[in-house]
Amino acid sequence: MSPAWNRRHVLSLSDFAPWEYNTVLQTANSFREVLSRRTKKVPTLQGQVVTNLFFEPSTRTRSSFELAAKRLSADTLNFAPGSSSLTKGETILDTAKTYLAMGTDLMVIRHKEAGVPHAIAAEMDRLNSGVGVLNAGDGQHEHPSQALLDLFTICALLDPANPRLELLQGKKIAIVGDILHSRVARSNLWSLTASGAEVHMAAPPTLLPKQFADYVKASDTAGSSEGIDRKLFIHWELEPALQAADFVMTLRLQKERMTSHLLPSLREYYQHFGITRERLQQCQPHVKVMHPGPTNRGVEITSDIMDDPDMSLIAEQVTNGVAVRMALLYLMGGGKA
Amino acid sequence: MSPAWNRRHVLSLSDFAPWEYNTVLQTANSFREVLSRRTKKVPTLQGQVVTNLFFEPSTRTRSSFELAAKRLSADTLNFAPGSSSLTKGETILDTAKTYLAMGTDLMVIRHKEAGVPHAIAAEMDRLNSGVGVLNAGDGQHEHPSQALLDLFTICALLDPANPRLELLQGKKIAIVGDILHSRVARSNLWSLTASGAEVHMAAPPTLLPKQFADYVKASDTAGSSEGIDRKLFIHWELEPALQAADFVMTLRLQKERMTSHLLPSLREYYQHFGITRERLQQCQPHVKVMHPGPTNRGVEITSDIMDDPDMSLIAEQVTNGVAVRMALLYLMGGGKA
Amino acid sequence: MSPAWNRRHVLSLSDFAPWEYNTVLQTANSFREVLSRRTKKVPTLQGQVVTNLFFEPSTRTRSSFELAAKRLSADTLNFAPGSSSLTKGETILDTAKTYLAMGTDLMVIRHKEAGVPHAIAAEMDRLNSGVGVLNAGDGQHEHPSQALLDLFTICALLDPANPRLELLQGKKIAIVGDILHSRVARSNLWSLTASGAEVHMAAPPTLLPKQFADYVKASDTAGSSEGIDRKLFIHWELEPALQAADFVMTLRLQKERMTSHLLPSLREYYQHFGITRERLQQCQPHVKVMHPGPTNRGVEITSDIMDDPDMSLIAEQVTNGVAVRMALLYLMGGGKA
Repeated sequence: MSPAWNRRHVLSLSDFAPWEYNTVLQTANSFREVLSRRTKKVPTLQGQVVTNLFFEPSTRTRSSFELAAKRLSADTLNFAPGSSSLTKGETILDTAKTYLAMGTDLMVIRHKEAGVPHAIAAEMDRLNSGVGVLNAGDGQHEHPSQALLDLFTICALLDPANPRLELLQGKKIAIVGDILHSRVARSNLWSLTASGAEVHMAAPPTLLPKQFADYVKASDTAGSSEGIDRKLFIHWELEPALQAADFVMTLRLQKERMTSHLLPSLREYYQHFGITRERLQQCQPHVKVMHPGPTNRGVEITSDIMDDPDMSLIAEQVTNGVAVRMALLYLMGGGKA
Repeated sequence: MSPAWNRRHVLSLSDFAPWEYNTVLQTANSFREVLSRRTKKVPTLQGQVVTNLFFEPSTRTRSSFELAAKRLSADTLNFAPGSSSLTKGETILDTAKTYLAMGTDLMVIRHKEAGVPHAIAAEMDRLNSGVGVLNAGDGQHEHPSQALLDLFTICALLDPANPRLELLQGKKIAIVGDILHSRVARSNLWSLTASGAEVHMAAPPTLLPKQFADYVKASDTAGSSEGIDRKLFIHWELEPALQAADFVMTLRLQKERMTSHLLPSLREYYQHFGITRERLQQCQPHVKVMHPGPTNRGVEITSDIMDDPDMSLIAEQVTNGVAVRMALLYLMGGGKA
Repeated sequence: MSPAWNRRHVLSLSDFAPWEYNTVLQTANSFREVLSRRTKKVPTLQGQVVTNLFFEPSTRTRSSFELAAKRLSADTLNFAPGSSSLTKGETILDTAKTYLAMGTDLMVIRHKEAGVPHAIAAEMDRLNSGVGVLNAGDGQHEHPSQALLDLFTICALLDPANPRLELLQGKKIAIVGDILHSRVARSNLWSLTASGAEVHMAAPPTLLPKQFADYVKASDTAGSSEGIDRKLFIHWELEPALQAADFVMTLRLQKERMTSHLLPSLREYYQHFGITRERLQQCQPHVKVMHPGPTNRGVEITSDIMDDPDMSLIAEQVTNGVAVRMALLYLMGGGKA
């Protein structure tokens, strides 16, 4: 039997234990069932306040969290940086403390700088506020709820009745694209290697992080105590990553990268790393393709694959995103019950 | 007795049957009664999600739909194009599919290009999603909920206990202003001619659509099968339209039109087509004036008329807008009950 | 026993009677208790609509009102000036009347021009709408809910079980900073002098209003009928204001003022009027410091003082803001019960 959830903040997956992954997967699965009903609401967080502090604008992720909170019957507040006190010289911590003082119970934070959610969480703890902080993307650091919804999507496909980390053991997962700038890749690295999957990352050398050896080493250390054999491989070409892969995760290519000369052109990227039906023939016959969205059709992936319901899990990822975020808010908020 | 509502999407009024108009009118009338209570809410759409995808910004119409959804106890999501993935290269269909995957039950869509709501509706059907799409204004094409609230406002004035299409038979209705660019005028044309009213459109020649004959012909065809005699008249001057009119609908004059040399000046427009108390003396003594808002006071209509509660139905239109939108969301959402 | 609340609008504190202040304080105190529960909601305004018409953008104050409305179970609408009909030439009164027609029960209004909330309230009354208008800050005129939350914060500190106006009698309160441009200072002047406190305002001469004598006179007149001795003192230096003060209210220094040459520099302001631990030693040992936020750390007040929970009431002010705004919406909305 799993211990009781006692993680107040979800900031990074670097120290997630297998039982924590499994608790999220099981809780998300029960919410997934709620979402299939006509009345997709539970009263769990009635009267509580979930505040979205999105210093970096995002419609998609904010909507997902907002809907997750509403379906738990929470009240939601959205902080809009454009018209905010930030432009009046207030610090980020002061903004967070203002929303704390108003009565926020859970904060969902996105910021273009790595570490901002951690700093806010530390301040919330210092003040003994009891508030939980969820990192919804900090710079190029982590985006844990995205990695957890990716994990859930894979596990729920493998065993819909009982999605669990162990299902990934021995599976081959390719992560393709701009690893260097991707907080999604960083978070996925922790969860996927923790599962015992074989993770193969493929990207042009300019889009691979130099400090990668550290990640591998850190995961080795963390992994050994759990008796899990973590396996991570890095490739400068697509083919060895795709070879016999069970799942192919594509990452969004930020067009801004072109201007900084990390890539010659979108066309050349597509020629070498774009996911096409032809290239997927090297994978397992049942291979599935994923993307965190929004997609650049014809760059990271062809429209053909993206819209093929037998191959693409992209819509499933979005749906599961609401269930996984409900699970996280539920688990984090449960500590105050 | 009317057949059961089976229209999943409300995109255009071009193929609305008389019994469909009457179903909307009767449903809106029952919601109008709800709105007069202290607690203006019904649990009809509890646990369902209504998403406003307003690619073209609008506060007034979005607020009306948002309030209609909340009064049906739905949860609402608002897509804000400014801070959205659209700027990141995602297609409009991908945006819609993302909100579908999150669990949207009904989508309300506004876009500056004609046909976008239709394209999204077609995609929703192709995916067997069961999601209903409501056109909240697409380019210069249609704005059906506005025309339906106009229709309801007129019918509810003529018989508050039983508003119905037939009440308009033989009434004379003038539509004055920028017909060329008005999606409101296009939608009103379908509903008003379907009712058997005599519709007189008046505008400067530069603000009248060239393809107008097609509309007349199409409505003739559609009308004949219902046994209704559709009557549409076009005027380049105001007077023949106002003569003995029962209702005068003014349209918003977009100031941008001046820059494209379609009109010499706002002052000249007002001199020839502005609605004044003096000019209204040619109408029926009980004439009522309408405007979809927002109004340019002193251009389309004098402040004097606009603020005269005996002549202006403008506030009534806004109030009825919430009731009619509740009716549409209710009827469209009922298919999933 | 107090008379029943019969004030439909809260636009200014200039004519608030002592029993009205006490009714707000007692009602806010009961809501403050609600906010300490896990389920921080009451059904008081269920089915009613509170519309925030913030013509001047504000995240902090709008969030506070939005949360107050949601905790009373009202539906909320937010008017966003950026994407609004205002840019299409509609007047402010027309915007307010549109939201009235949609079914708004209470309007919360902020505008950069003094008097806008009064004009809207007058129009709502002229139309016999029954709608209550709350001034959430109009130009440099008034910000009554801020002054009431300041008052509640002080009174609830002095007697948590029974906060009331009389507790301030004989207390010395310093108001420091940009009095000239502060709607907060103007509203606080009415409430604090009404309480019998001794109010000492301190600011550089360029940031003090010329017409100050009028305020003093007006409060004398208003005060005499209640048998309260109003005491207001103006200082061009900080020291005499701080001397033996029980409470020090600092005001936000708008950096825009520098550009208009009213102040040589932020540094010089801080040197003469910045609140430091050293300077507070002239006050009562139990002195508390307040600020309406957002704060310019190191300008109006040192970070050291701001973050000292024994001296700073700033977080308490934000929390009480929600309770006081719930009280105001409750009292104003009660008239329609």
